Amino acid sequence: MTKMIRTGLIGLGYWGPNLARVLAQAQKSEFTAVCDLDPARLNRMARQYPGTRTFTDVNQFLNSDVEAVLIATPIGTHYELARRALLTGKHVFVEKPLADTSARAAELMEMAARLDRRLMAGHTFVYSPPVVKIKELIDSGTLGDVRYLSFSRVNLGLYNKDVDVVWDLAVHDVSILLYWLGEMPERACSFGRCCVQRAKRDVANLWFQFPSGRVAWCEVSWLSPQKMRRTCIVGSERMVVYDDTEPSEKVRIYDRGVNLRRPENFGEFQLSYRLGDMVAPHLSNAEPLLIEIDHFLDCIESGAAPRTDGKFGQDVVRAIEMASDIGWKAGCAQEELLLNRMGRELAEKAA
Amino acid sequence: MTKMIRTGLIGLGYWGPNLARVLAQAQKSEFTAVCDLDPARLNRMARQYPGTRTFTDVNQFLNSDVEAVLIATPIGTHYELARRALLTGKHVFVEKPLADTSARAAELMEMAARLDRRLMAGHTFVYSPPVVKIKELIDSGTLGDVRYLSFSRVNLGLYNKDVDVVWDLAVHDVSILLYWLGEMPERACSFGRCCVQRAKRDVANLWFQFPSGRVAWCEVSWLSPQKMRRTCIVGSERMVVYDDTEPSEKVRIYDRGVNLRRPENFGEFQLSYRLGDMVAPHLSNAEPLLIEIDHFLDCIESGAAPRTDGKFGQDVVRAIEMASDIGWKAGCAQEELLLNRMGRELAEKAA
Amino acid sequence: MTKMIRTGLIGLGYWGPNLARVLAQAQKSEFTAVCDLDPARLNRMARQYPGTRTFTDVNQFLNSDVEAVLIATPIGTHYELARRALLTGKHVFVEKPLADTSARAAELMEMAARLDRRLMAGHTFVYSPPVVKIKELIDSGTLGDVRYLSFSRVNLGLYNKDVDVVWDLAVHDVSILLYWLGEMPERACSFGRCCVQRAKRDVANLWFQFPSGRVAWCEVSWLSPQKMRRTCIVGSERMVVYDDTEPSEKVRIYDRGVNLRRPENFGEFQLSYRLGDMVAPHLSNAEPLLIEIDHFLDCIESGAAPRTDGKFGQDVVRAIEMASDIGWKAGCAQEELLLNRMGRELAEKAA
Amino acid sequence: MTKMIRTGLIGLGYWGPNLARVLAQAQKSEFTAVCDLDPARLNRMARQYPGTRTFTDVNQFLNSDVEAVLIATPIGTHYELARRALLTGKHVFVEKPLADTSARAAELMEMAARLDRRLMAGHTFVYSPPVVKIKELIDSGTLGDVRYLSFSRVNLGLYNKDVDVVWDLAVHDVSILLYWLGEMPERACSFGRCCVQRAKRDVANLWFQFPSGRVAWCEVSWLSPQKMRRTCIVGSERMVVYDDTEPSEKVRIYDRGVNLRRPENFGEFQLSYRLGDMVAPHLSNAEPLLIEIDHFLDCIESGAAPRTDGKFGQDVVRAIEMASDIGWKAGCAQEELLLNRMGRELAEKAA
Repeated sequence: MTKMIRTGLIGLGYWGPNLARVLAQAQKSEFTAVCDLDPARLNRMARQYPGTRTFTDVNQFLNSDVEAVLIATPIGTHYELARRALLTGKHVFVEKPLADTSARAAELMEMAARLDRRLMAGHTFVYSPPVVKIKELIDSGTLGDVRYLSFSRVNLGLYNKDVDVVWDLAVHDVSILLYWLGEMPERACSFGRCCVQRAKRDVANLWFQFPSGRVAWCEVSWLSPQKMRRTCIVGSERMVVYDDTEPSEKVRIYDRGVNLRRPENFGEFQLSYRLGDMVAPHLSNAEPLLIEIDHFLDCIESGAAPRTDGKFGQDVVRAIEMASDIGWKAGCAQEELLLNRMGRELAEKAA
Repeated sequence: MTKMIRTGLIGLGYWGPNLARVLAQAQKSEFTAVCDLDPARLNRMARQYPGTRTFTDVNQFLNSDVEAVLIATPIGTHYELARRALLTGKHVFVEKPLADTSARAAELMEMAARLDRRLMAGHTFVYSPPVVKIKELIDSGTLGDVRYLSFSRVNLGLYNKDVDVVWDLAVHDVSILLYWLGEMPERACSFGRCCVQRAKRDVANLWFQFPSGRVAWCEVSWLSPQKMRRTCIVGSERMVVYDDTEPSEKVRIYDRGVNLRRPENFGEFQLSYRLGDMVAPHLSNAEPLLIEIDHFLDCIESGAAPRTDGKFGQDVVRAIEMASDIGWKAGCAQEELLLNRMGRELAEKAA
Repeated sequence: MTKMIRTGLIGLGYWGPNLARVLAQAQKSEFTAVCDLDPARLNRMARQYPGTRTFTDVNQFLNSDVEAVLIATPIGTHYELARRALLTGKHVFVEKPLADTSARAAELMEMAARLDRRLMAGHTFVYSPPVVKIKELIDSGTLGDVRYLSFSRVNLGLYNKDVDVVWDLAVHDVSILLYWLGEMPERACSFGRCCVQRAKRDVANLWFQFPSGRVAWCEVSWLSPQKMRRTCIVGSERMVVYDDTEPSEKVRIYDRGVNLRRPENFGEFQLSYRLGDMVAPHLSNAEPLLIEIDHFLDCIESGAAPRTDGKFGQDVVRAIEMASDIGWKAGCAQEELLLNRMGRELAEKAA
Repeated sequence: MTKMIRTGLIGLGYWGPNLARVLAQAQKSEFTAVCDLDPARLNRMARQYPGTRTFTDVNQFLNSDVEAVLIATPIGTHYELARRALLTGKHVFVEKPLADTSARAAELMEMAARLDRRLMAGHTFVYSPPVVKIKELIDSGTLGDVRYLSFSRVNLGLYNKDVDVVWDLAVHDVSILLYWLGEMPERACSFGRCCVQRAKRDVANLWFQFPSGRVAWCEVSWLSPQKMRRTCIVGSERMVVYDDTEPSEKVRIYDRGVNLRRPENFGEFQLSYRLGDMVAPHLSNAEPLLIEIDHFLDCIESGAAPRTDGKFGQDVVRAIEMASDIGWKAGCAQEELLLNRMGRELAEKAA
């Protein structure tokens, strides 16, 4: 018989209700408690999930018999809530990003290790079938050497009240990028503009360079007329376009490429072009959020480290910070520009 | 009766035959001479355009009665050929880019002014109906304040033998950008990689910041599985997507946006979202190359400055240089990275 | 203060839960009772909508204080359930199609008129913003004379257990067609094949000719690799493509056409081609099902005839019958073909 | 050494110049003569293809030493010109359709056989890489049993002066259909409307039923706002979408389907759905017209029957006739409808 894990949720804003639905659905979850400051939201949950207790006080919530806590609150509160949940002996799932600074993310990571609790960052895309499929293609060598990656995540978006577009949208791409490559960038920078609001970038472009030589760029925007969720992964043997707006055929694998042919005798290097078939593999329709929560519960049961554990969550925050550190200007007035530091060397040189 | 202008062409490589076809077709052109080092190419031209004289010697070509010279040779030869043509009293059209350095482009520009000859750079896109339409939308205020522009020009491309992908492809986007905005960037940088060949970038990303605060980025690649020719122009009143791969509806104008609403009384600023109609204006199917050559001949006749005159051509080269100057590393080995200077301030600070 | 109407639902299969959700949401609805033969389904509803009474016996359900009954049961049961609901004084909403024969649909229509009850057929598309927008374009004369219509509704579909693909999918297109044109076809026929199952067509093509001269065709399939929901409406002044698979820009209005120009003097008629702008009007994102149920409740309150009243529902069934009557062969074996009667004239002639 | 065949062309209207270009290019062709009534067109050809003799008189043209004659004149003249060319001992290529009636096409076919001359109908699509690829998929059994085919060939088209849309556009689809299936339809009918001109259908829908049970439909229109060149081939093992408007990936092979699973014991038949990968095979970019003309010249050299020989050309005309015969109404006034005979049985029954 499956042992059920008593789960509880803090935060019923935009994203929380999705987690609630999945907690009610997951096989190993006994969804027992929700916590929010707003009684109206709690009432709605109570009606929809009878048997779930409601709390407006987070201490009372943490003192309940909940074993695993999911946190879906504004980013600025992640650290404090996760810390308290870990200290009361809970396993903790934190919506992305894990914390608002990498230092705080590292602290949570260490605390979870010391207390032997599972800590997981909610990077849902890392559990989605297209992203997992591409990870397999990279790891199996099907793509050959990955040369560069290009991400576009733009639309006419709901402006996030807490953070800028980098912390809101680029976090997704960075989590996918780090999962695929398995290495941290050695240099990063970003470039963007605060178009609508003072001091909050709504369009940006990020660049990453990795120790292996691989490079990546990522365009994010809340201010774009057409929605794009497009990633291009160029390898020496295969190229992939992953378009998440496609209803099917989200992943297209192209047997295309350009390579240098070794010269015979003492001739010049020659370029050879390869144009082969395209394959769109069938992908599971399983809901990533459900896969993710099942994974969290499995890790609690087995004691294994989650794929997006505290270390992974901290790496994502650190990569965003590397790209976001401001080298030029301290503030971002409306109609002003943010040009950020281009990695360490440059910052040091300029110092 | 229309006065005909005697036209001649130097360079019958990849692009030259297209210019020849248009010179034979244009109403004001009397296509009289071609020049190339390769007699086989000259013979083919002579058969196709009887009445056109052929030259393997550029001096003899320039000493013929040709009035207007079109140059479609490798970039490294533009300066020298254009210079000699101007000095022998010809009007000169040079394929993009005008020269391989902005200093040389400036020299040509000054020489043309001094000799009172028309000098034009072959930035064909500036004459294409979609680009002209968007220029009208910007100048008329229909788009409101232009906030940012995003260009993608990627495909599995024919590698250019002479130059890297920035000098080959980004030149198009920069010419469009400068034409639309009518201002020079004050900062620029680029980031890319030499994936296939040593010391020649085949993928790159460029950033530009303008004195008005507007920003733009441009992704170019010879190493991409799907062809993209997509430009997004975001204004405060309208947003435009220009997709040159579409057979029709290349320009789509979206009445969409986000703006800050002034607060009533002492409340907070509110964001208001606008979602209106989309219009794809009907555009002429006229061939941009023919429009461009007609414009060159009209300017010779009238004495007016071409839209893409020497000054414009020099600006394009200068903007590419701003983005291409190497601040970090002197060379670009295969498997190495180019991270370039971020405008002047940074370079000076780092010095 | 809004008067609430006590609503009840029969049938909790595939579609019923969607109606339940909307009944719980609609402002004028007090969702009080559900009826199904399966207690498990009833329990699920009771948990989700506390305060709603559950019935396994339809007589007890009808004897409750429910004022308006919604029927979402297999098509073969529509007539009997609607009849009994009307006879117990309820207002009745029947999922499409209204009944399995036009004679039975007519009987329901007459019964509702005699008993002064509202009877409405659940043709949801007739309430969707794109379909309503196109109705306005037709009625206002914007499209000019409608010349022909082409419908494609194909995908790799869930095979309906009760009926063939015409009764399952083409019913949608026919309801849209009759709503737009406001006339009944005078001739109709269909052509299809029973590919997978004996005696049940899974692919078909229908033709309709209207007294006004307008023609329409409709392709439906459960056996198609790509999903299409595409309708093309060709008028003498404008042409429209309505693509329901598009996330936005579902309706595109083209200012394109071909017309005969009257000859000057005694010359020939000349064709003139018109190629103008395309406009994709912004459309409301309101849920058609909620609009539909609100309309039903409004009609109960006001006594007005619903847009898709019994007469409309009967017209749809009659048009499907016109196209479905079998003139050639009595049965449809697997690997056999159905070629159906081409309207009345032909059937009578052949008799 | 390759023996050259002296080729000549009659008809320099819309299509003729394309044939001329290919005749000048094909390795086995010595392009020696052109014939047209219009001296201006002849002059243009003479300039472009020096060494090609020009004729305004078809008898003189046929009395020249031309060995193979290509006919690209209005459809009504095909029979007479082909007949005379055969009688003067030429091999003959006739643009599609081979003749304006199947009786005349049969006469040409028999004449060519009697005189031992090659006769070929210009069904270019039958030589295009996508169509050939799909033929291979069908013949190899990769698609399983072909269940049905759906063709859409619509756009805002240039109205053909000679014939209606069925004879202009559907001829393409019928040639592809007969090539793929290798059988003649046993029943066919069509339905359409004369929207713009009297007595000339500009939109139509054709239906075909084959002895094997397979069915096909084909929508053609000169009066459609968006261009479609889409064919869907549904087999029991694989489904294919062939979209000729795609710049690449014209053929997509879907491993999708629905099949009946044999019941275990005495249970019901169960439907099983299969959703697998999609593959877009790389296809040659070779020009179909050049492949076609090379094939014609190869057949002249070898004496083999062309793939689209007289018999094939006659079958296409016959299938169009089967679908076009008018059973209901003798004429087609503007604003009137053509409802045509539904195969033989129905016509006889109605008689």
